[in-house]
Amino acid sequence: MRAIQVSGQQSGLQLVEREVPSPGRGQVLVRVAACGVCHSDAMAVGGMGGFPRVPGHEVAGRVEAVGEDVPQWQVGQRVGIGWFGGACYRCDPCRRGDFISCVEGRVTGLSSDGGYADHVLAPADALAAVPDALTDAEAAPLMCAGVTTFHGLRTSGALAGDLVAVIGLGGLGHLGVQYAAKMGFEVVAVARGAEKGEFAERLGAHHYVDSTAAGDGGVAGALQRLGGAAAVLATVTDADAITGTVGGLRPRGRLVVVGVPQQPLALGAADLILASRTVAGHASGTSKDSEDALRFAALTGVRPMVEEAPLEDAQDAFDAMMAGRPRFRMVLTA
Amino acid sequence: MRAIQVSGQQSGLQLVEREVPSPGRGQVLVRVAACGVCHSDAMAVGGMGGFPRVPGHEVAGRVEAVGEDVPQWQVGQRVGIGWFGGACYRCDPCRRGDFISCVEGRVTGLSSDGGYADHVLAPADALAAVPDALTDAEAAPLMCAGVTTFHGLRTSGALAGDLVAVIGLGGLGHLGVQYAAKMGFEVVAVARGAEKGEFAERLGAHHYVDSTAAGDGGVAGALQRLGGAAAVLATVTDADAITGTVGGLRPRGRLVVVGVPQQPLALGAADLILASRTVAGHASGTSKDSEDALRFAALTGVRPMVEEAPLEDAQDAFDAMMAGRPRFRMVLTA
Amino acid sequence: MRAIQVSGQQSGLQLVEREVPSPGRGQVLVRVAACGVCHSDAMAVGGMGGFPRVPGHEVAGRVEAVGEDVPQWQVGQRVGIGWFGGACYRCDPCRRGDFISCVEGRVTGLSSDGGYADHVLAPADALAAVPDALTDAEAAPLMCAGVTTFHGLRTSGALAGDLVAVIGLGGLGHLGVQYAAKMGFEVVAVARGAEKGEFAERLGAHHYVDSTAAGDGGVAGALQRLGGAAAVLATVTDADAITGTVGGLRPRGRLVVVGVPQQPLALGAADLILASRTVAGHASGTSKDSEDALRFAALTGVRPMVEEAPLEDAQDAFDAMMAGRPRFRMVLTA
Amino acid sequence: MRAIQVSGQQSGLQLVEREVPSPGRGQVLVRVAACGVCHSDAMAVGGMGGFPRVPGHEVAGRVEAVGEDVPQWQVGQRVGIGWFGGACYRCDPCRRGDFISCVEGRVTGLSSDGGYADHVLAPADALAAVPDALTDAEAAPLMCAGVTTFHGLRTSGALAGDLVAVIGLGGLGHLGVQYAAKMGFEVVAVARGAEKGEFAERLGAHHYVDSTAAGDGGVAGALQRLGGAAAVLATVTDADAITGTVGGLRPRGRLVVVGVPQQPLALGAADLILASRTVAGHASGTSKDSEDALRFAALTGVRPMVEEAPLEDAQDAFDAMMAGRPRFRMVLTA
Repeated sequence: MRAIQVSGQQSGLQLVEREVPSPGRGQVLVRVAACGVCHSDAMAVGGMGGFPRVPGHEVAGRVEAVGEDVPQWQVGQRVGIGWFGGACYRCDPCRRGDFISCVEGRVTGLSSDGGYADHVLAPADALAAVPDALTDAEAAPLMCAGVTTFHGLRTSGALAGDLVAVIGLGGLGHLGVQYAAKMGFEVVAVARGAEKGEFAERLGAHHYVDSTAAGDGGVAGALQRLGGAAAVLATVTDADAITGTVGGLRPRGRLVVVGVPQQPLALGAADLILASRTVAGHASGTSKDSEDALRFAALTGVRPMVEEAPLEDAQDAFDAMMAGRPRFRMVLTA
Repeated sequence: MRAIQVSGQQSGLQLVEREVPSPGRGQVLVRVAACGVCHSDAMAVGGMGGFPRVPGHEVAGRVEAVGEDVPQWQVGQRVGIGWFGGACYRCDPCRRGDFISCVEGRVTGLSSDGGYADHVLAPADALAAVPDALTDAEAAPLMCAGVTTFHGLRTSGALAGDLVAVIGLGGLGHLGVQYAAKMGFEVVAVARGAEKGEFAERLGAHHYVDSTAAGDGGVAGALQRLGGAAAVLATVTDADAITGTVGGLRPRGRLVVVGVPQQPLALGAADLILASRTVAGHASGTSKDSEDALRFAALTGVRPMVEEAPLEDAQDAFDAMMAGRPRFRMVLTA
Repeated sequence: MRAIQVSGQQSGLQLVEREVPSPGRGQVLVRVAACGVCHSDAMAVGGMGGFPRVPGHEVAGRVEAVGEDVPQWQVGQRVGIGWFGGACYRCDPCRRGDFISCVEGRVTGLSSDGGYADHVLAPADALAAVPDALTDAEAAPLMCAGVTTFHGLRTSGALAGDLVAVIGLGGLGHLGVQYAAKMGFEVVAVARGAEKGEFAERLGAHHYVDSTAAGDGGVAGALQRLGGAAAVLATVTDADAITGTVGGLRPRGRLVVVGVPQQPLALGAADLILASRTVAGHASGTSKDSEDALRFAALTGVRPMVEEAPLEDAQDAFDAMMAGRPRFRMVLTA
Repeated sequence: MRAIQVSGQQSGLQLVEREVPSPGRGQVLVRVAACGVCHSDAMAVGGMGGFPRVPGHEVAGRVEAVGEDVPQWQVGQRVGIGWFGGACYRCDPCRRGDFISCVEGRVTGLSSDGGYADHVLAPADALAAVPDALTDAEAAPLMCAGVTTFHGLRTSGALAGDLVAVIGLGGLGHLGVQYAAKMGFEVVAVARGAEKGEFAERLGAHHYVDSTAAGDGGVAGALQRLGGAAAVLATVTDADAITGTVGGLRPRGRLVVVGVPQQPLALGAADLILASRTVAGHASGTSKDSEDALRFAALTGVRPMVEEAPLEDAQDAFDAMMAGRPRFRMVLTA
């Protein structure tokens, strides 16, 4: 099989030939059709998962072979694999049904080889069924960018009709705005620059705030003038841009953080206390959550905007993503 | 009437004679029997509520007169008045039943004169009924320190049997530990110094962590060695002491912040995201919440530890409280 | 003013001339533009609210005069009045912010005169602001049929993307289906007769189940074949039709009951226990909930389907409604 | 090994000799020290689980051997096994973390042989760790009667200090009262006969209602005179006794049903709707919930009251339990 692997600290992404692995007990071999390029792939490229390592955790493809004890998946079935790389079912969080908090922390493309390849081996519980309505290139980014925003929004505590802000209009944000609109929220998109307003509206946003010209009180002030947000989904990685929205939450509002800035989030305690606000970290979702995100997209028309590139151009695609060049989601196709 | 008033920025707390006010429509005149001295009184003393102002929002006493349209309170009834100074019932939060977030922000002893006096005038909805089982000096501190910890704990999301940490063993913390124990939590008290361990146990704590000698990973590490806390109630005002507990939360755990440090809380986004943790500001409670806190104390034996001082010694009591000298709650008695 | 009043047990609805009342403290006089005819009006007609009584709790109109102490409403403002007739703010439920459970139980058109008239007097807190996007005839039915289904759905515990069934396609149901679809649920409409399927789809339903030909296991079986419903909103008043859906709930699913059948609901305990299901009574919503229902309709395009009739034809409209003749909502126009 | 088995429809419980089984992959062999006799054992005795079948799902003992792929349990470790017989981790509910709703429905002593024996074989995920503070005879009943009441109460929505009623004072009820008291609820015990009042108090109840002499409005009226219950835990199997408590719930109150009456529960819709009440089926708990129930008992002093009998007297113990003769929990000892 052909795979794009990180071989060492400075080596970058290299195309290599590998043997196609056989699925062991509880495992599934998936033939990759598409794999999204996500900002978190930088962790694998940076060596956090050891060497050699194949990045990629936004996989769409077909089941090619199943190991022992995998009655739930059939050869030929369309499936996706995301950040969630399966659970142990023995640790405390798993026994409470909180698989995403499994202490083993299995992550596709980080603790095991991922989807920058034409084949990937995964535990059966890491797979999500892909609905017919979605192409492979559409399904792939929903396995991480999609489920993260979808699941973050549906568990944010905001009720239908509530004002919800999505900060950022990139890979995650452009999906977050669509999901939020289809969930019946009154959606505020927040991004840098007036020129993105029209695009935000096309995605379904009811309001657009240009964070570089938000007026009195900045983004927080703009959100308060709209009534105050019941939830803010922060998809950006600029700490100030994230914490700058807290004052825009209405009482009992929740800031849902999915991006990881370098700097700590500096939060004023009084801002939290006086309006009973919360700040919540949100970590992707399980494979079942991903199925839900995919089904919801199929049901309501939510679609990622993608730019496709062949597998062998992975380094270019990764560099472009890191430089913020692609408007939306780069997807490698096998 | 005799009252302790702040007359101007540098004037300190002065005993003055005032006319006893008459209750207007919807108001109640309360004869004060005891008034707790709370750290938040510093806001009134500092001039935040204007001049002249009588501080004090931990009041226990008896109804002396009621104004028009107050069928719910009778002369002679024992009542308490806390931080919550009544609601407008017209703003958005009020119409959603979230009175503590009322946009008018009425605060006893800050936006109106409080309980450092022998009489206080309050809106009828700011009063809580006091059960017979509690003395006035016991009831008073429960109207702020009590309800804040009680209500913060019962809405923390922690379930009976879960590990819950209370940070600090002062006016709020020593009540928080008692409340947590009587709610069936496995309680960890955290404070500075080994000598407070025995005291924490007497209050009902199952574990004690001396934050100055917490071992590997500090307080967070100590909490993780106990299994990880489902909730942390932070009653201290040292930002580092508060944020240092986040790593001690189990997955889905919640840090409940009730103290306001000078410095912002610096939170690592990854610490929040990877274990789906939340940080929540918690603002006291309504008069009904206070009634619940008092009833619970009467039911289970929770009691504040108080040092009494006569009203005219208010300045000394306030100074002692600010200097951290009294072990627990100073209470002024009329 | 002209009003349609019930004068005694057998008297029916009679047009009378009355003096236009003046708003007292805390009251608002509303000039009625439209008033929906709801099944619950039968309670007033039956004498439950005493005689004489003007029915009608789906009012839309304009503020004509305000009493003392009503800063929040201005003359000329468009408002609606629903089942919720205001709260006392003194009883236990009110003090907990649960106004709909107020022990005084004030109900428009039942405990006070309602909207079958050209003017209606109401407490200020019973009013909801009406957005410009809705006509009076559209807004009126949303004040009861609308808020009941909207609020029942948004608090049902179902998350976006979940399967939700709406039982019945009448005055409440045809709004329930629209609301559910715009909230991002996968919607199953259930009604009697194959011919309503196309209509259900036009309202936004993704599936239609003809309850008279639902196949194996009846409606419950049909819902299970679709995956099991996370929530069922039962808008019908046939006890068997309501309880027959319990088996169609997925584990942890909730049956939300808004219609009141003559017969008790006969529930098998095992059906509840083995799948951890719940059955919940749902009572309309407050005036703020109604504002939310109206805003959501304005935002997403939800609209009631109405048949208008002049005020003086109230008896005919009421009879037609009770006989189930109008397809949707009868609305009296002044 | 010696086991008490049901061999056929009319055969009753017979002592047989069997070969001690060897644990397969994912299985654990437990040497039984004690096994509670539960009303649900009648399902096995009645043949619901096929023949031959060894009943018993309240097991306490020690790990004697572990199969392949069971790193989490060690030989010699003290463990319990309850109603929950493990999960499949592949069905929809399992993938959502709701193991108790697993579609395979594995039940100890029903779908596989249970604890009326000196050895029992169980899937590793069906085991709960037993704390040192509890004897085997104390731990056994907590594995079903204990976890059912403990978990039902902690997820009932009632907050600390709320009024909670426990209906019945038998095997489940006498544990429910203790658990409720230690969780900080204001506890009402309800049972038949004045003579149980003193016993209820000893268990920690703050109030006792003799259901045969409850006064105006029956049990519902008595609960309303105490303020209305936030939650009712119904451990009895008399349908009327269960539904008769609904009127005693305060607004938003919840009736938690854990017993299965022969007759359906007949619920008035208006009783549910007007006070926004819910009726919830509650099904035991997972092995992790059981661990929590055991730990909580160890922490707070909750203990079952048991009568021990030797394994070979299982028939007598079962008959006595079905006839309601033992005051509390019969426990078979090996």
